[in-house]
Amino acid sequence: MSHFSQLKYAIVGATGIVGQECLAILNSRNVPAHNVFAIASKDSCGKVIQYGDTQLIIQHLDSFDFSLCQIALFSPGASVSSVFAPKAAQQGCWVIDNTSFFRMDEDVPLIVPEINAHAVVQAKRRIIANPNCSTIQMLMAVQPIDKISPLRTIVVSTYQAVSGAGRSAVQELQDQEMGSAVAVRFARPIARNVIPQIDVFMDGGQTKEEWKMVVETHKILKPGIRVLATCVRVPVVRGHSEAIAFELEDDVPVGDLAKGFESCAGVVYCQDGLCTPLDVCGRDEVFVGRLRKDGPRWYQMWVVADNVRKGAALNAIQIADVLVERGIV
Amino acid sequence: MSHFSQLKYAIVGATGIVGQECLAILNSRNVPAHNVFAIASKDSCGKVIQYGDTQLIIQHLDSFDFSLCQIALFSPGASVSSVFAPKAAQQGCWVIDNTSFFRMDEDVPLIVPEINAHAVVQAKRRIIANPNCSTIQMLMAVQPIDKISPLRTIVVSTYQAVSGAGRSAVQELQDQEMGSAVAVRFARPIARNVIPQIDVFMDGGQTKEEWKMVVETHKILKPGIRVLATCVRVPVVRGHSEAIAFELEDDVPVGDLAKGFESCAGVVYCQDGLCTPLDVCGRDEVFVGRLRKDGPRWYQMWVVADNVRKGAALNAIQIADVLVERGIV
Repeated sequence: MSHFSQLKYAIVGATGIVGQECLAILNSRNVPAHNVFAIASKDSCGKVIQYGDTQLIIQHLDSFDFSLCQIALFSPGASVSSVFAPKAAQQGCWVIDNTSFFRMDEDVPLIVPEINAHAVVQAKRRIIANPNCSTIQMLMAVQPIDKISPLRTIVVSTYQAVSGAGRSAVQELQDQEMGSAVAVRFARPIARNVIPQIDVFMDGGQTKEEWKMVVETHKILKPGIRVLATCVRVPVVRGHSEAIAFELEDDVPVGDLAKGFESCAGVVYCQDGLCTPLDVCGRDEVFVGRLRKDGPRWYQMWVVADNVRKGAALNAIQIADVLVERGIV
Repeated sequence: MSHFSQLKYAIVGATGIVGQECLAILNSRNVPAHNVFAIASKDSCGKVIQYGDTQLIIQHLDSFDFSLCQIALFSPGASVSSVFAPKAAQQGCWVIDNTSFFRMDEDVPLIVPEINAHAVVQAKRRIIANPNCSTIQMLMAVQPIDKISPLRTIVVSTYQAVSGAGRSAVQELQDQEMGSAVAVRFARPIARNVIPQIDVFMDGGQTKEEWKMVVETHKILKPGIRVLATCVRVPVVRGHSEAIAFELEDDVPVGDLAKGFESCAGVVYCQDGLCTPLDVCGRDEVFVGRLRKDGPRWYQMWVVADNVRKGAALNAIQIADVLVERGIV
């Protein structure tokens, strides 16, 4: 960790939920304040934000010189990343981008470190993409199973927290809980409701969030798995849940699958089965419960993780770890 | 309807959410107050409840003479139904029971009128069971599809409202929204959370609610369909949602399936796809949206219905309609 804390980091989108979590993780790893640059858009420029016991002055993205640092953690909107991630990379900095913009580019690796850290060698432009939050936790849960018997089919239904849509979405939920009828961030009020739409609709009727879960699974884990996803927003602040049914090549005893989780880094297997978003908020691991067999070769399980940590900030910083461990930075 | 309004009805569990909805539907159908008996346990006995413009005095279940009426709509707990439904039937009254107690009995039909009204002839004890709320709306949505191509597999994940757990559960959500940390009705706080447990756990790891969706589907629609269910409580007051993936025998164009819903009594097909619990609260129909094809023979859709109406009170009264139409009462 000593080398890690000596590197210099730019946090782009430092005022957002994911940016704040990145800062919290860097601080918990004892990266000194003088090694951290908080970057944001014009609106926040010049303001100060807390970093442990000290404060950082927010710098303006337009004028920031990325050659000052080795690693930039990007979590602004996709359109901002499309312009500034390549700029930062050209200035010699490694970019780990949390938006969807580069994820499917061939020369940009899409990495969940526990699964495909090796893909880092495919980076041709000093840009690495952080996968979608829902994809990360699903793949963390299915990968140990795929090692025991190859996955044929995954049917996933998500229960996604509003924090995945940013700070204004959390505020919208809070306002609606207090009686507001205004729905801006979501197509319907989200308080006391569930909404079967995340991101925009695509041709064929699936949403872009659902499409991401399919194509990112194929890129990170392996092609050829049939993935059927329904992504749903629920009135939870933090913590995504997923009901996952899956079909394997072989008819494996369910106990063998449970054992597969035991020695699995980053996964906690809940024997009693009941884990909920409120239980896992602030935790690093992906929690797997309610594992059961449901006929020949078919199984079900329930997967919960903190979408802001393993689903975003933590996974991005674990990608930085890969760069450090492999001597790339 | 004239004969319907001339019959006499006992509403057992009249103070509960479902009992209240039964009263509201009877009143909307102009059943006069003198034809309606509101029945409850000792605690509520002697109190008055509203019935349209008039009031009913709640009578005590223990001493009520069911020979005074032709139809009893039961929605107390399962243990109460187990004792009093047979008693009412022996007194000559037809019982439509909303609890799970009799559902799998061979001589008790389990009926969704649009699907298997014909099963009424199998009633040997004047008891008919009303299916589980989640089962009813799922079967309403899959039955038109099964007519086009036989269903092989259904994978369903539910998003179930707290009203399905009764009035005290709704109160618990409201209290938690105001800051209470007390969780009695559910295994975890339900405000700003989702809980992957409805009813008790059974051997093999599935909950009883999930088991109901499997065995009730086999009894009502047909045996042999593979049903994988995960049932989840969400912080919604009223309206159950279901993400349903299904596999057919044939590779049918998705447009053909959509057409199947057009002339389907009790189902509204939402072309734009987006229907949520808040949209359907108080409505009689089952709403189907987000229908899409997802590879050969696999499809997905989203199904929402008011769990208190079609999921409980309305379906029970539609069963009474069957008894009337067939001259049984």
